Amino acid sequence: MKTAPAHDRADLSVLGHELHALVTELYPICRSITGDGLRETLRRLQRFVALTMHEVPTGTRVFDWTVPPEWNIRDAYVKNSGGERVIDFQKSNLHVVSYSVPVHEKMGLEELKTHLFTLPDCPDWIPYRTSYYKRNWGFCLSHRQLLGLPEDEYEVCIDASLENGHLTYGEVYLPGDTTDEILISSHVCHPSLANDNLSGLAIACFLARYISQLPRKYSYRFLFIPGTIGAITWLCVNESRVSRIKHGLVLAGVGDVGALSYKKSRQGDREIDRVAVHVLRQFGPKSRILEFSPYGYDERQYCSPGFNLAVGRLSRTPHGTFPEYHTSADNLNFVDPCALGESFSACVSIFSILERNRAYVNTSPKCEPQLGERGLYRMMGGSAEDNTNEMAMLWVLNLSDGEHSLLEIAERAQLSFDSIYYAAAALKEHGLLKDALSGVKIRHGRGAGLD
Amino acid sequence: MKTAPAHDRADLSVLGHELHALVTELYPICRSITGDGLRETLRRLQRFVALTMHEVPTGTRVFDWTVPPEWNIRDAYVKNSGGERVIDFQKSNLHVVSYSVPVHEKMGLEELKTHLFTLPDCPDWIPYRTSYYKRNWGFCLSHRQLLGLPEDEYEVCIDASLENGHLTYGEVYLPGDTTDEILISSHVCHPSLANDNLSGLAIACFLARYISQLPRKYSYRFLFIPGTIGAITWLCVNESRVSRIKHGLVLAGVGDVGALSYKKSRQGDREIDRVAVHVLRQFGPKSRILEFSPYGYDERQYCSPGFNLAVGRLSRTPHGTFPEYHTSADNLNFVDPCALGESFSACVSIFSILERNRAYVNTSPKCEPQLGERGLYRMMGGSAEDNTNEMAMLWVLNLSDGEHSLLEIAERAQLSFDSIYYAAAALKEHGLLKDALSGVKIRHGRGAGLD
Amino acid sequence: MKTAPAHDRADLSVLGHELHALVTELYPICRSITGDGLRETLRRLQRFVALTMHEVPTGTRVFDWTVPPEWNIRDAYVKNSGGERVIDFQKSNLHVVSYSVPVHEKMGLEELKTHLFTLPDCPDWIPYRTSYYKRNWGFCLSHRQLLGLPEDEYEVCIDASLENGHLTYGEVYLPGDTTDEILISSHVCHPSLANDNLSGLAIACFLARYISQLPRKYSYRFLFIPGTIGAITWLCVNESRVSRIKHGLVLAGVGDVGALSYKKSRQGDREIDRVAVHVLRQFGPKSRILEFSPYGYDERQYCSPGFNLAVGRLSRTPHGTFPEYHTSADNLNFVDPCALGESFSACVSIFSILERNRAYVNTSPKCEPQLGERGLYRMMGGSAEDNTNEMAMLWVLNLSDGEHSLLEIAERAQLSFDSIYYAAAALKEHGLLKDALSGVKIRHGRGAGLD
Repeated sequence: MKTAPAHDRADLSVLGHELHALVTELYPICRSITGDGLRETLRRLQRFVALTMHEVPTGTRVFDWTVPPEWNIRDAYVKNSGGERVIDFQKSNLHVVSYSVPVHEKMGLEELKTHLFTLPDCPDWIPYRTSYYKRNWGFCLSHRQLLGLPEDEYEVCIDASLENGHLTYGEVYLPGDTTDEILISSHVCHPSLANDNLSGLAIACFLARYISQLPRKYSYRFLFIPGTIGAITWLCVNESRVSRIKHGLVLAGVGDVGALSYKKSRQGDREIDRVAVHVLRQFGPKSRILEFSPYGYDERQYCSPGFNLAVGRLSRTPHGTFPEYHTSADNLNFVDPCALGESFSACVSIFSILERNRAYVNTSPKCEPQLGERGLYRMMGGSAEDNTNEMAMLWVLNLSDGEHSLLEIAERAQLSFDSIYYAAAALKEHGLLKDALSGVKIRHGRGAGLD
Repeated sequence: MKTAPAHDRADLSVLGHELHALVTELYPICRSITGDGLRETLRRLQRFVALTMHEVPTGTRVFDWTVPPEWNIRDAYVKNSGGERVIDFQKSNLHVVSYSVPVHEKMGLEELKTHLFTLPDCPDWIPYRTSYYKRNWGFCLSHRQLLGLPEDEYEVCIDASLENGHLTYGEVYLPGDTTDEILISSHVCHPSLANDNLSGLAIACFLARYISQLPRKYSYRFLFIPGTIGAITWLCVNESRVSRIKHGLVLAGVGDVGALSYKKSRQGDREIDRVAVHVLRQFGPKSRILEFSPYGYDERQYCSPGFNLAVGRLSRTPHGTFPEYHTSADNLNFVDPCALGESFSACVSIFSILERNRAYVNTSPKCEPQLGERGLYRMMGGSAEDNTNEMAMLWVLNLSDGEHSLLEIAERAQLSFDSIYYAAAALKEHGLLKDALSGVKIRHGRGAGLD
Repeated sequence: MKTAPAHDRADLSVLGHELHALVTELYPICRSITGDGLRETLRRLQRFVALTMHEVPTGTRVFDWTVPPEWNIRDAYVKNSGGERVIDFQKSNLHVVSYSVPVHEKMGLEELKTHLFTLPDCPDWIPYRTSYYKRNWGFCLSHRQLLGLPEDEYEVCIDASLENGHLTYGEVYLPGDTTDEILISSHVCHPSLANDNLSGLAIACFLARYISQLPRKYSYRFLFIPGTIGAITWLCVNESRVSRIKHGLVLAGVGDVGALSYKKSRQGDREIDRVAVHVLRQFGPKSRILEFSPYGYDERQYCSPGFNLAVGRLSRTPHGTFPEYHTSADNLNFVDPCALGESFSACVSIFSILERNRAYVNTSPKCEPQLGERGLYRMMGGSAEDNTNEMAMLWVLNLSDGEHSLLEIAERAQLSFDSIYYAAAALKEHGLLKDALSGVKIRHGRGAGLD
């Protein structure tokens, strides 16, 4: 199987470096769940795709939640009595607890420490912390730095604002032959964390650009949203259109060198789940399939019982299982161009199968049709040679009773989707297959462009 | 999970010794499937619980069976020509084959041997034998003793009666909020065998006393019955009420030091089966789950195809798989106070889950509700810490669509029932859950007392 | 379980040698998918069974195929310039590509080589090749022989005819108590290949003779047909009667010393599949169960989606997985008398279970009936001895609710079908079972003869 239908290995390497360059460009911006950092990030994506920015006012009720005040930060520091910035937001935006209320005070070390967060087990790394829904302020720093702070009078300053404003999110909608949608969702609310948020949004952005140039059966909707509150807001604002989403993929943590992993949807056996399992199997034995759990990224919201969408999640090493998670070590070195390229390729493979998966009916179902006289079968009999193409044709003919999709045939035949797909195409060309009429679960449009 | 909701480890130790004391008190009594030994045993249980004794006359037709004549024995011996008792019922009631017809004769060793039963493989142990439905008589003795019997003229005497009388059984009924019943059945028909019958009846007796003091949704019915014929008699006499039994547990062989085992009901996937599997998993990896088979104790009758009740069996080492089974070595040393306490505790855990298991509906099913503002979630974000309580809440919210019971949620979440139960309780307190209406399979009563 | 109900081990040995003698007799005949070699083969089978020969004219349209011209060959050779036959059909009929068009020409080595087929990896063996549907001619020879051919002018002669005629097949129909049929199909189109075709047709022939002498519930239809085109022809000509086939077995490659293997039907869970799995399990742990695939022998046609019959395949080492396959090494030494006898015995066991499998209803479903008073149960209680017969009776009573066939009971009890069958027979004799009325899937006829 071609793992990346439109990209060979060299293309993927180029693409991986382009993805890494985009991650690098966006890395310094201080994003949060609202504010100008998020807007600036989305604006830069508009260079690649026709992304629409939406603004939802503070105070808007979205299901059980309320859109919070908008947070913006200009500067923050802790100065010692000598006027030296011992903690400096300008050096790393992780130093400030996200959504910290403004503060400008002097205090001793003891009081200051109640607002400081470190990682004693990883003494050189700065942790990432937030306080979205409780008014608070704080600084994050390396544990080694904390240990070096002497008793002193410190000047603490967070020059931030927390005011009525908007929650911002980006959306790219690519109409297809049908209004059935594939949803791709990535979060864009983390500051300088490379794998956690930047890897996903970079790949989603490039996928949107790539798919926009291809004919397609499905419509595609890409969401670039702040985690949790963004997904909740989008689902609330677009509730009437949610039923169009037939398949979905959350992209999160797709840039590290760990193997690919797929977390199943709440239902666990939907087409997206089977397709992703099929694709990941072809990315090697280290690929992992994870059962659904109600923790993680925005699949939590898409798979809440009131929506229960067929949305899974593609990641590499699952979040929370690597020490760099939510620390300053999730930096540009932690994200690998090859891994980014491979994750992109896996997404394309998944969409390509979704586009092409359908069920056929064998027009000659009683006994095998004579493939040889149609030039579809070897003419010299007796050889014991294995022949994947012929086996693929025999499987397609045998199981094309209108009830088995090409993917199901590939699974049972233990062959790649592509070999089954091309066998079906050859058989159809010779009039040996016709479209299945039922087509409720698996519809057909015109020729897909993702093959 | 608290393995014994109302008993801490020290309590369980005390309880285990009390159970062993009851076993010790009942051990010398010569029980059989009818007769005064059985009555005396039940009478002593009346010290602990309000046990009703039922008498069913000899000759009563019960399904395919007939209540047999009542058997009572006063004395039995084999004397040698010197008048010495070489086999003496007064030393062990196992010496006489249960239901032996009266006999008083003299005979040589050869003839005598046709009525003697030993265990050549365990030459110091006396076997336990019965001949309920074929008129016969016999003695059991150690193989070593048999080998020491010289040629002689022996006087054989079994001073027993086999006459019209009654079959006796005991019953404790504890009404609950509903008429739906949990059945607990133990056999009371074995003479001096400690694990086989005394362990089960002692625990059943203490469970009845314990549960009688608690509020409860279910009604509980405890049966203290002779094996096979007793269960058949009870089912026949109470046939019209059998449909009230929603869950049941046969207790047999629950006092040895082997790990706990649960034998599934004939249907294999009933609530009692899933609850018992869940509980036993928490009693350690040596716990065993056994598939149903139509052999064993009175689950044979409760699970016969005409009743097919959801009745499983709790045991420790399964009967027939330990050498002491049905021998004089199943004595007071073979039964362990700690094991008795643990078995009691496992039963309480099972009933406690049955009492509390129900299905809820998430009142805020579209996306997650905001747990933080309700004080149900940590307020500082970003940490990768595992938090069982929060995970339990997320699982309950995600799966509470009215179709998943708390137990099913616990199974899928791989968390204990208790953590799921307490999460649900907290969510319900905050109005985030309401009772599922369907409630056919899993009903709710008022607050259960077993938690 | 008796593995061969009507044959003890000595009988089987005799039978195995008779089977091998028939294979030996038929080995030299040059069979193809049409022609006199096939007719001669069928004629010789008529010594054993009342086999009807059918002739279908060339040009008959059978589904997507057309009955081909009839091929007959008298002689064929390649002579060197000295007039010596360097390749000689008279020495082995494998030397000529089956269905070669007539040729009589002189040519140099280079041109000749384009018509020669060898096996470089097995340089002493002659391959078996066919060209049924493309007009062509060719010779097969050992690779060593090819290497020894000098440059020369060769005289090539294939004295064959390819003309309008008939496709021939044989059929044995044995009517039973019902019109429900068991189909046994074997191919008869290979020339001197012993395991591949001769083993199957010999066993099918002996099975037909054996079954013809027994009372039977099912009707049996034995087909001796050319592979692929023969099955297609039979299905087309008999389409209206196909629905009578309830179970079927393709016999192919059943004579080598490898372990027995069973390839499941397309549906995979039909009664024939379960029976064959049950039987093969009793032929030792090396027996293999293979999932259906649309490649192989005529199960391809019977299991095409338009028919989807419950037809599996019995083989020993699966075709294509042993080097001798389709070469001159599949000779009389490759086929073993004991293996032939064992394969015969496995077939008999399968048919015997199909004949006897049915569902009963326990007439005493509430609690166990009293087996002891009917002499069906040991009378002395208390022993822990395993007793398969008693267990079998308890399983039959417990699961005979009209929904479990005897085979399903055997599977769940992990006992042999025979022990369950004999237990059911004893219970029925005592009035404890009656026939299940539903009997759609599993009907009952009069006493089967195959037990």
